[in-house]
Amino acid sequence: MKINLDRESRTPLYLQIKNQVRQLILGRVLQPGYRLPPERKLAAALGVNRSTVVNAYRELEADGLIESHVGRGTVVKYVPDRESGDEAYSTVQPPAWKNLFSSRASRMFNPFISDMLELVTSEDTISLAVGVPAREFHPSEDFNNIISGLINKEGGCLFEHGPTAGHYPLREYLAQFMRNKGIQAGPDNIIILSGSQQGLDLAAKVLIEPGDPVVIEEQTYMGAIQVFATAGARILSVPMDEEGMRLDILEQLVSRYRPKLIYTQPTYQNPSGITMSGSRRRDLLRLVYRFHVPVIEDDPYSELCFEGGPVSSLKSLDAADHVIYLSTFSKMLFPGLRLGWMAAPADLVRQLLMAKQLDDLHTNSLAQWAVNKYCREGLLQGHLEKVRGEYHKRRDAMLASLAEYAPSGLRWSRPAGGFHVWCRLPEGVQAGSLLAYSVEKKVAFVPGGIFYANGGGKEMFRLSFSRCSPARIRKGISIICDALRDLSNTGPDHKKDTRHVREEGQLF
Amino acid sequence: MKINLDRESRTPLYLQIKNQVRQLILGRVLQPGYRLPPERKLAAALGVNRSTVVNAYRELEADGLIESHVGRGTVVKYVPDRESGDEAYSTVQPPAWKNLFSSRASRMFNPFISDMLELVTSEDTISLAVGVPAREFHPSEDFNNIISGLINKEGGCLFEHGPTAGHYPLREYLAQFMRNKGIQAGPDNIIILSGSQQGLDLAAKVLIEPGDPVVIEEQTYMGAIQVFATAGARILSVPMDEEGMRLDILEQLVSRYRPKLIYTQPTYQNPSGITMSGSRRRDLLRLVYRFHVPVIEDDPYSELCFEGGPVSSLKSLDAADHVIYLSTFSKMLFPGLRLGWMAAPADLVRQLLMAKQLDDLHTNSLAQWAVNKYCREGLLQGHLEKVRGEYHKRRDAMLASLAEYAPSGLRWSRPAGGFHVWCRLPEGVQAGSLLAYSVEKKVAFVPGGIFYANGGGKEMFRLSFSRCSPARIRKGISIICDALRDLSNTGPDHKKDTRHVREEGQLF
Repeated sequence: MKINLDRESRTPLYLQIKNQVRQLILGRVLQPGYRLPPERKLAAALGVNRSTVVNAYRELEADGLIESHVGRGTVVKYVPDRESGDEAYSTVQPPAWKNLFSSRASRMFNPFISDMLELVTSEDTISLAVGVPAREFHPSEDFNNIISGLINKEGGCLFEHGPTAGHYPLREYLAQFMRNKGIQAGPDNIIILSGSQQGLDLAAKVLIEPGDPVVIEEQTYMGAIQVFATAGARILSVPMDEEGMRLDILEQLVSRYRPKLIYTQPTYQNPSGITMSGSRRRDLLRLVYRFHVPVIEDDPYSELCFEGGPVSSLKSLDAADHVIYLSTFSKMLFPGLRLGWMAAPADLVRQLLMAKQLDDLHTNSLAQWAVNKYCREGLLQGHLEKVRGEYHKRRDAMLASLAEYAPSGLRWSRPAGGFHVWCRLPEGVQAGSLLAYSVEKKVAFVPGGIFYANGGGKEMFRLSFSRCSPARIRKGISIICDALRDLSNTGPDHKKDTRHVREEGQLF
Repeated sequence: MKINLDRESRTPLYLQIKNQVRQLILGRVLQPGYRLPPERKLAAALGVNRSTVVNAYRELEADGLIESHVGRGTVVKYVPDRESGDEAYSTVQPPAWKNLFSSRASRMFNPFISDMLELVTSEDTISLAVGVPAREFHPSEDFNNIISGLINKEGGCLFEHGPTAGHYPLREYLAQFMRNKGIQAGPDNIIILSGSQQGLDLAAKVLIEPGDPVVIEEQTYMGAIQVFATAGARILSVPMDEEGMRLDILEQLVSRYRPKLIYTQPTYQNPSGITMSGSRRRDLLRLVYRFHVPVIEDDPYSELCFEGGPVSSLKSLDAADHVIYLSTFSKMLFPGLRLGWMAAPADLVRQLLMAKQLDDLHTNSLAQWAVNKYCREGLLQGHLEKVRGEYHKRRDAMLASLAEYAPSGLRWSRPAGGFHVWCRLPEGVQAGSLLAYSVEKKVAFVPGGIFYANGGGKEMFRLSFSRCSPARIRKGISIICDALRDLSNTGPDHKKDTRHVREEGQLF
């Protein structure tokens, strides 16, 4: 039993002894039944009066942590503080938690994202499942330098509370960044988020009443579906064609249900890779102006553009403040910092800030300062140029391998940017079966069903090309295609694909 | 007009020109009406074929960004992409946001914390208002070394997604940390939070249905009041005495209303500084076992103990899993990292994790790794020893200055740890009036009203001693006491204090 006394301390010696023994007992270093040294002996060892040890032991005994037995000396009791030793409470049941849950809790479902986040770190699988930047492109060295520089120069500032809306210089930077995309928003229209997922949660808290209709694209980001469903929204799905959300269907839904919100990812959509055309964007705005429906434009991928040049965001086309813009550094840089932002009209910002304050007070300060410095040193643009080229190569490798290996009947999209290729299986084959086959061969992808709010998508799957080298992508695709051939030939759910083929392999 | 062409790029030259001119127009570098160089001239300047520039200009014109006039050449149009130029939509009104808000949003109130967070950074005021660690104690250098070491050694890992429950080694560390306090919880019972505020928000989401009764201490952390109120809870306040929550009143409320939750800060409570006695803790547990009411124990301050030795947490006494334990690194270390944690029974953890995933996927990875390393290198214990001593001195300075300067009738608490001293004004003086006087003299504190859910507290105020040196505390207290004397002598709300004085200055 090791006790260290600090004779300079204001804490009396007997209390120092008591506290240290207490910690040893609670931490199970001293087990129940352990015999403590006799008072006189411990006093001698520590160089204190016997009465000091007597006082310490007396307090420990009063706390029920030790007990004295004639003959056996002083021994440690079994964590006696806990009520478990108390006869009357030995039968108390823990609360039946599930019966205490709110109706909101009962609407939460499918912790699939968590599972996927854990998959990211598995090394021996070719993961075409996660749409996350490749580790080898993370600008770790630059961030190391920036963070060190900041800590040396700014000292404690980085560790302090900051404003709920976020670090002002970063908001200024983002205002300029968006201005370069044609979006007019000042720093006061911007909220820095702990990841863009938080923006969805805040918008749902502030805008969605249980029962409110919310429109989404038929297949979309599952984190958005989950947030809206948990908020109790009635979810309405609009099918997409190669130009994006189908406005003929949207108009029917909007005029019938007057939704509270439309959620769209117009650029390099997850999972479909579709980009909404310019004329579709203008027509969408005309439609929402007519019915006064706010739109959330979720735009995580627009900087990762390979072809066709940058696309005008919905927000940049919006003349009447109907669009709430949401983006993130998770795809441009890396996701671990949890840093996103939203731009919204002032009336809405005020209310979103109240919700954010209740949620986490504000976003991690160090992350905000570091990203601000990184961007202001011009490093973001260089990084984006580099990764755009690399992801472009990976997309090309995926498309080329699909063209080379795909059995007839498999269709896929050709995204002009972003991370995802969206595939449709030949009739009669289900993505779940294919995944089971592929995972055995150490290749993972995401079956389509989870991107649908209301069922469907069993024949669809998503391939993400961001995490793997072109060679691994090639290998992964060839394995998946082999698995698909096996499954088509032998599987019980195989039927011949007879649908019209627009062009070999093309989905949209 | 500066254009840089990259002849190695896969992007065709005409598109490079188009994209760069587009960005100059959208970024307002080229103003509406600006005349672009003639095609032939630009082609010569860039060393490209004229047709390349013609194609670029044609696309820009198709996008509505420029227009050709016979005689005037090619000029920039006024951000013509925006629908504002469209006659039919020039009169479209932005959405009437306030009418779109949810009933949850309408329950959010008082963005006082945001205001306080901004006050932290004001230099010329003696702030006794914020209960936040002093900047001069932030272990910046240690964190700098740790973060650099981590980035060099772990590379990209730190920037990756992590599990929703948090970095496993940190959860293991915290399990041991809590075990040393007598709390039995494994890593799987622990969720790392983006600040402990998030824990309150998650618990409210998972457990509170609008209308559910929730019990709080009569004066308590305003962030908790706000979260429960926003969730639609019916808030029941229990008065406190010097041993904590009054159980005679609590029993009445519990047996009548069967609350969904009891929220308590039993140790060095904010704002009162009161510590619940050991016997009160045991009696509280007996009471909640009888009625099966879960308890949230919010424990941010227990490591900042000056007197009387460590206190056994409620959770350590709980034999039947009724207590949800919540804590944070914000008071032990610093708040800017937004890092807290909660420990809860497995059934509840599962549901809380679903809620956390919808909220922010997971907490900032770098912050988690850095704090884990810091703790595992044994630096936390040393830091706590140091700051305990420093805050002890600051508390003593505050109590001594109050004893020296306070006019008769002012009462204050003597906290054994934490950051806060709780004061009652002489009858007839209101804290709001005193604050107005004090702020003019550059001293700030928090008037008591905001710590009460259901009105009251106008004669109370909170002094926090964490942020200022003993000398500044002394100066601040003397200024407040002078202000109080002025106000008592001249103020319209002055009456003579006639209440019984238990002991000079003592509140509890």
